[in-house]
Amino acid sequence: MDIYTFLILNGPNLGHLGQRQPEIYGHQDLSHLEGLIRGLPGTDPGKIELLFYQSNSEGKIIDRLEQAREEAVHGLVLNAGAYTHTSLAIADCLAWIQIPCVEVHLSNVWARDGKLRHQSLMAGHCLGVVAGFGILSYALAVQALIHHLRS
Amino acid sequence: MDIYTFLILNGPNLGHLGQRQPEIYGHQDLSHLEGLIRGLPGTDPGKIELLFYQSNSEGKIIDRLEQAREEAVHGLVLNAGAYTHTSLAIADCLAWIQIPCVEVHLSNVWARDGKLRHQSLMAGHCLGVVAGFGILSYALAVQALIHHLRS
Amino acid sequence: MDIYTFLILNGPNLGHLGQRQPEIYGHQDLSHLEGLIRGLPGTDPGKIELLFYQSNSEGKIIDRLEQAREEAVHGLVLNAGAYTHTSLAIADCLAWIQIPCVEVHLSNVWARDGKLRHQSLMAGHCLGVVAGFGILSYALAVQALIHHLRS
Amino acid sequence: MDIYTFLILNGPNLGHLGQRQPEIYGHQDLSHLEGLIRGLPGTDPGKIELLFYQSNSEGKIIDRLEQAREEAVHGLVLNAGAYTHTSLAIADCLAWIQIPCVEVHLSNVWARDGKLRHQSLMAGHCLGVVAGFGILSYALAVQALIHHLRS
Amino acid sequence: MDIYTFLILNGPNLGHLGQRQPEIYGHQDLSHLEGLIRGLPGTDPGKIELLFYQSNSEGKIIDRLEQAREEAVHGLVLNAGAYTHTSLAIADCLAWIQIPCVEVHLSNVWARDGKLRHQSLMAGHCLGVVAGFGILSYALAVQALIHHLRS
Amino acid sequence: MDIYTFLILNGPNLGHLGQRQPEIYGHQDLSHLEGLIRGLPGTDPGKIELLFYQSNSEGKIIDRLEQAREEAVHGLVLNAGAYTHTSLAIADCLAWIQIPCVEVHLSNVWARDGKLRHQSLMAGHCLGVVAGFGILSYALAVQALIHHLRS
Amino acid sequence: MDIYTFLILNGPNLGHLGQRQPEIYGHQDLSHLEGLIRGLPGTDPGKIELLFYQSNSEGKIIDRLEQAREEAVHGLVLNAGAYTHTSLAIADCLAWIQIPCVEVHLSNVWARDGKLRHQSLMAGHCLGVVAGFGILSYALAVQALIHHLRS
Amino acid sequence: MDIYTFLILNGPNLGHLGQRQPEIYGHQDLSHLEGLIRGLPGTDPGKIELLFYQSNSEGKIIDRLEQAREEAVHGLVLNAGAYTHTSLAIADCLAWIQIPCVEVHLSNVWARDGKLRHQSLMAGHCLGVVAGFGILSYALAVQALIHHLRS
Amino acid sequence: MDIYTFLILNGPNLGHLGQRQPEIYGHQDLSHLEGLIRGLPGTDPGKIELLFYQSNSEGKIIDRLEQAREEAVHGLVLNAGAYTHTSLAIADCLAWIQIPCVEVHLSNVWARDGKLRHQSLMAGHCLGVVAGFGILSYALAVQALIHHLRS
Amino acid sequence: MDIYTFLILNGPNLGHLGQRQPEIYGHQDLSHLEGLIRGLPGTDPGKIELLFYQSNSEGKIIDRLEQAREEAVHGLVLNAGAYTHTSLAIADCLAWIQIPCVEVHLSNVWARDGKLRHQSLMAGHCLGVVAGFGILSYALAVQALIHHLRS
Amino acid sequence: MDIYTFLILNGPNLGHLGQRQPEIYGHQDLSHLEGLIRGLPGTDPGKIELLFYQSNSEGKIIDRLEQAREEAVHGLVLNAGAYTHTSLAIADCLAWIQIPCVEVHLSNVWARDGKLRHQSLMAGHCLGVVAGFGILSYALAVQALIHHLRS
Amino acid sequence: MDIYTFLILNGPNLGHLGQRQPEIYGHQDLSHLEGLIRGLPGTDPGKIELLFYQSNSEGKIIDRLEQAREEAVHGLVLNAGAYTHTSLAIADCLAWIQIPCVEVHLSNVWARDGKLRHQSLMAGHCLGVVAGFGILSYALAVQALIHHLRS
Repeated sequence: MDIYTFLILNGPNLGHLGQRQPEIYGHQDLSHLEGLIRGLPGTDPGKIELLFYQSNSEGKIIDRLEQAREEAVHGLVLNAGAYTHTSLAIADCLAWIQIPCVEVHLSNVWARDGKLRHQSLMAGHCLGVVAGFGILSYALAVQALIHHLRS
Repeated sequence: MDIYTFLILNGPNLGHLGQRQPEIYGHQDLSHLEGLIRGLPGTDPGKIELLFYQSNSEGKIIDRLEQAREEAVHGLVLNAGAYTHTSLAIADCLAWIQIPCVEVHLSNVWARDGKLRHQSLMAGHCLGVVAGFGILSYALAVQALIHHLRS
Repeated sequence: MDIYTFLILNGPNLGHLGQRQPEIYGHQDLSHLEGLIRGLPGTDPGKIELLFYQSNSEGKIIDRLEQAREEAVHGLVLNAGAYTHTSLAIADCLAWIQIPCVEVHLSNVWARDGKLRHQSLMAGHCLGVVAGFGILSYALAVQALIHHLRS
Repeated sequence: MDIYTFLILNGPNLGHLGQRQPEIYGHQDLSHLEGLIRGLPGTDPGKIELLFYQSNSEGKIIDRLEQAREEAVHGLVLNAGAYTHTSLAIADCLAWIQIPCVEVHLSNVWARDGKLRHQSLMAGHCLGVVAGFGILSYALAVQALIHHLRS
Repeated sequence: MDIYTFLILNGPNLGHLGQRQPEIYGHQDLSHLEGLIRGLPGTDPGKIELLFYQSNSEGKIIDRLEQAREEAVHGLVLNAGAYTHTSLAIADCLAWIQIPCVEVHLSNVWARDGKLRHQSLMAGHCLGVVAGFGILSYALAVQALIHHLRS
Repeated sequence: MDIYTFLILNGPNLGHLGQRQPEIYGHQDLSHLEGLIRGLPGTDPGKIELLFYQSNSEGKIIDRLEQAREEAVHGLVLNAGAYTHTSLAIADCLAWIQIPCVEVHLSNVWARDGKLRHQSLMAGHCLGVVAGFGILSYALAVQALIHHLRS
Repeated sequence: MDIYTFLILNGPNLGHLGQRQPEIYGHQDLSHLEGLIRGLPGTDPGKIELLFYQSNSEGKIIDRLEQAREEAVHGLVLNAGAYTHTSLAIADCLAWIQIPCVEVHLSNVWARDGKLRHQSLMAGHCLGVVAGFGILSYALAVQALIHHLRS
Repeated sequence: MDIYTFLILNGPNLGHLGQRQPEIYGHQDLSHLEGLIRGLPGTDPGKIELLFYQSNSEGKIIDRLEQAREEAVHGLVLNAGAYTHTSLAIADCLAWIQIPCVEVHLSNVWARDGKLRHQSLMAGHCLGVVAGFGILSYALAVQALIHHLRS
Repeated sequence: MDIYTFLILNGPNLGHLGQRQPEIYGHQDLSHLEGLIRGLPGTDPGKIELLFYQSNSEGKIIDRLEQAREEAVHGLVLNAGAYTHTSLAIADCLAWIQIPCVEVHLSNVWARDGKLRHQSLMAGHCLGVVAGFGILSYALAVQALIHHLRS
Repeated sequence: MDIYTFLILNGPNLGHLGQRQPEIYGHQDLSHLEGLIRGLPGTDPGKIELLFYQSNSEGKIIDRLEQAREEAVHGLVLNAGAYTHTSLAIADCLAWIQIPCVEVHLSNVWARDGKLRHQSLMAGHCLGVVAGFGILSYALAVQALIHHLRS
Repeated sequence: MDIYTFLILNGPNLGHLGQRQPEIYGHQDLSHLEGLIRGLPGTDPGKIELLFYQSNSEGKIIDRLEQAREEAVHGLVLNAGAYTHTSLAIADCLAWIQIPCVEVHLSNVWARDGKLRHQSLMAGHCLGVVAGFGILSYALAVQALIHHLRS
Repeated sequence: MDIYTFLILNGPNLGHLGQRQPEIYGHQDLSHLEGLIRGLPGTDPGKIELLFYQSNSEGKIIDRLEQAREEAVHGLVLNAGAYTHTSLAIADCLAWIQIPCVEVHLSNVWARDGKLRHQSLMAGHCLGVVAGFGILSYALAVQALIHHLRS
């Protein structure tokens, strides 16, 4: 059984999880995430390596994704924040680096007001989406990636 | 720790999973689902009871949802198929029965062509969405429901 | 003076009036309706016969309307619920059975959010509309039908 | 039981009821209206006082509505004519004077051609709507107001 | 041969012809118009009576049109100014007073920028339109009315 | 030469052909259809078997289509009525049962008013369309199916 | 029984049937069409006269249609190619020459990508439409014309 | 006083004036037009020379307009028929040949149904428009041209 | 240093500032405004003369603006209320009277729901806009006018 | 009386004020701004501290805003330049850092061509807006912030 | 090295290059083009044969393109003028004749006003586009064709 | 003859030319570009100096453009990648730095699916566009710049 390296990549305004509008985004921060993931079957450190990156900059997110391609990362968990809805450039990057990617959102973006938030430019280049469960969304995404890589 | 009853509700054209366009929807049918779910931590039969229902009829889906309210079902995993995008009536039903619900899709509907499939009338009345992972989507949804009910 | 038979027809999610979101739809159920109507001048049982039907199914509503045509019902009071906004098929049925019909709604649908609820596919085939007064809407509709048939 | 004062307010082109396009708007004029209303239970002059106003001017309609607020009128029956669809200013006025209001129309505006007539700027500030029954619409609106004030 | 009475009706911002943006609307005022018309064959005072009215108020324009119906005016030359594009109420008035009407504009409104100015709510209730020729537009409209009434 | 089985499937409001708005849909009912088809070359009962089904219910139409797949029906003649324009669920069903299908309409739907009727959700999953010739449309569709299966 | 003259009129890019994109338009050319038609009952040369015309020019198609009116052609089978979707001028011509016309297409245009191809400016002036069956579409259209003229 | 040469240019379906849908376009043909114009003051043959051209072809209309530029025609009266609404190419031609042009229509195109007919691509390159008065529209346009050239 | 005369012009529903929906529009009325303005540097009565006008009528607002042109008012502070979004006629008036104008709003109209309120027909004819600060908005606008006139 | 710290934040292309298209944006640069502000009552250095920041990068603007939250800045004056109309990410940041913010623009963006510039994604998270007065806009915004914090 | 034959095809209003609106389209005519092309490396007459065609007629352009297919022309340089934006028929022709084509424009059409000019129906069937450099655009297109054919 | 300095500026995802989706973007990288350019007449190093810059960051692209203005670069060849379609900020920068710019694309963006890619925010500020020829597009753009500067 292979060891998989996954990059958990967070976009703008996601550097302060737990502090930002907790009524929408929840009270937990990323420090809870690793615990959540490790608690799942088949995800102990000998099997899954997790990398974390956050940036408010569209350009740096693309830089990091291109670097992930050179590092041969096995899977991406991407919460592009507001760039989900506006960044054709990040979408173009996903299209060419060809790393399996799961789109995640803390809140259920399709349930929020505002037509702009109902369009994901990322979706066309992702395996699937998990949205609405706070940081559990990331853990479910990791499970989906493992399942995808093993089948 | 309580025993939870969940209703896994499938809409139109979802009665023949595994046979229908497997290049989009996968080769597995619902018989694999219970195994997938039971393999997760904390989901053995003594703790989670699963009900299954499938109908091609919008009206019967609403009937079944209203019955779930009377049965005091704890959570819903809803794949409304094409009705996801057209049935204001099912959405209205979710609004009033007030049972925690996770929207699931076998394929990543937001990645498919056709603007109509990018709009979910269900989303506004669901905790979240899991889409794109074949029947694994249902298992992840069950996990999200358990997590929601326990927190 | 003739005896008129009226069919009061309710669509999806209208089988539990009084229980469903009472802050929007009110606390009264249909059992109050007959009293409300009978209290109006010229509506005692010897003059007005009332039939009631409710279904969550678009197809059964059409079946019932076609049956009403064969029963020579004199007037319709139709609350098509969410189908008001989505069912071209029910609208087509009203167009051909040619029974005088009044569209009713419990809430003032044109005052609610969401553009979809501001479009009635029924309207083009109805004498008029009464919306926003809870079950009193049905009673006013009956009055309008009597007035229409007598003039 | 209180005495209620209601203002019946008609907008542009409604000063010649009975003469204007009777195939759409009917042959009866406002002189028939008081009779129709008085024929209803609980609406005799000792209990209900009716005020009438008509103007072709958007500004004067707002003036009259603001005056109604100072007179402590109990309810409004408003047929804003074409301004129903174009006057954000009258809608703003209804929003702040806070008098219970029923929107009425002689014809079933939602059944007429032309998308513009299917949008009511008034609706968001009214209890409900009665449309399509000629001047009977006004009488039904008065009933709805009485019912609203008594409950 | 009959004597015809025509009402030349000008809407908002048309009270200062010749002074207002002459690069768009020309340097001539209405005093030139009567001369222009009288210079045409068959339009001497014994045969054509001209009435003039201008108002900035939508309501007063409707009042004047309703008065024209009572005066049995034979034809209308209507430059509704900006209300051409926004006043459903004036359009409704033209629909019911049933006086032959020609729509005129000083400038060629269909050649100007801005989609709003390309839609005339008046057009559906007018014989035709003359636009773009300064006050000559009115004279040509009078000719068209005479031609229409004589044939 | 094989024997072909064809399912003639009619949707909502098509159970009363000949009675429903004959000025639009014609005076003939389905009893005339079999005669029309049998009069064509190569369509005698030894060669072509015809099955008929009608339902007002979207769900039952899908049930019947799924059954047709199990019966190995060779071709479909589908008049989905109003569901043509609104039922993504029936369209999804056609996509997966993979039976050659011809879309038919009694009237020329593309010639009727109303943008909604100009969009067919069925078309993307049909060989072709025949519309506007009353019940002859069905007979022409049968000819097209035979031609398709033989070539 | 009368002899009917029909004009089979093809628009732009239809002069090379069989050579043009055969995966969309089929391998048969118009030489097969006469045989297909003559094989149908009641279409032998003594009863049906066929005229053929093809042009890439919108203007020449209108010229030919106006000439057909002077020749008293009994019916039209029109495949206007791309002009189906863009030529208001050909549509205007059909409106005034008043010859029964059937719209045909080789491919199922409503099933193809691109919203522009889903709008037919011709439809409003045609009896019906046959699309998607290659040159068989023309033969079915001839049958529909005969049926129309005989009834 | 100069002699002016005017080109009266008619587009598609305008070659049979008086025969085509007379309820919309009137019963008079172009032979009446010269009489109408000559009856106006200052338009006798020594002063105004009239050229007539009609074509169903967009390309030939552009050819004729380019020829008019070489002939130094003083003014254009253009009824582009349906091309009014669809031909960017004719509009581009008007833009560069720089001959004063009046747009005319027999019917009041802005009063007809259909949004497409409410947009004139010609308008941006014309002095003005005269529409709705049958062939009198052309005569009024000639007057407007003379007035424009003399001032 | 010149004395400037400014007209503070308020549109519909702005005659009762401080009473109307104070949670949106604030508790202060216009009597506070003069104090606010006089407290700013360079705005004492010897230097700045303030005129106030309010009307609910679109026509009277235009009348007042035309009068301001004749009075040679130096600057306008315009809160056109709901007419901001619907009155092309007031916008046309600003275009021709050519008096420097600042658009003001009590609330931040661009932050409110409803697309209609996000479009200002006034903006194209104003120096700038100040919105969202209650009656302070007017004072800031006066400062901007002084600054504009002095530079 | 408290000392307030305000951050004046400028977005893309605003680093060269005074040099960039001065016919639109004015000739003054930010060095004039501090003087303008200090000249207002109650804004001397002992009372108001001003911080300045400019970046062409969307990500760095968000970084700076998040830093302002940690520095407990009292108010923001934000000219987001073109990001005003496209950056959902900056808008999301304003939503969570919860610092009172005034949106400013040098030019009157609502008066400029181009629908894109008429939509502000910032507005929903700002107290108000000041636009069109060059760098005076910033000074007026500071006044509004002081007024807001003191009341 | 092969000899290539290229067809330089110009659409409506392109027969008078150098005379037509030179401020947009430049002062040079096609006689300069051959010189420009011959000055490029590898384009002397022994290697590249140039054919020129211009027509104002959409139909004739299609005729010429179909002839090019029979002549086995190696490449097309197409400036379809206004037909670029409106002619689905020319686009359909490019789709089936399958000759490598470069779209050219004298002006930068994407920089001009008017949404209609920003849509090219040709683009989907061309290798690429060169726009904005006057007749140099054609020469660059020839270079691109040579490069395409040699690689 | 002057020496010209040109900046070749590449936006997001253009740092790995030749590796990224070669079926769309080609196999050549920028190292081939200088050779291609130097092979053209009049482009040897003594005459043309080439600067190269690539960034994934919108902000850094603007920084580089502003620097180019200070370096007095003579021309720009800009491939803004996905920012072509979304970055109003880069477009604003081009507007003010006023350096002649040619827009280039490797693929023919107007031929690709997706409406978003058919809109270039850059176009309004560029001399012209070259798209669809891989890195040859850049070389053609350099030629166009030289031609522009020399004429």
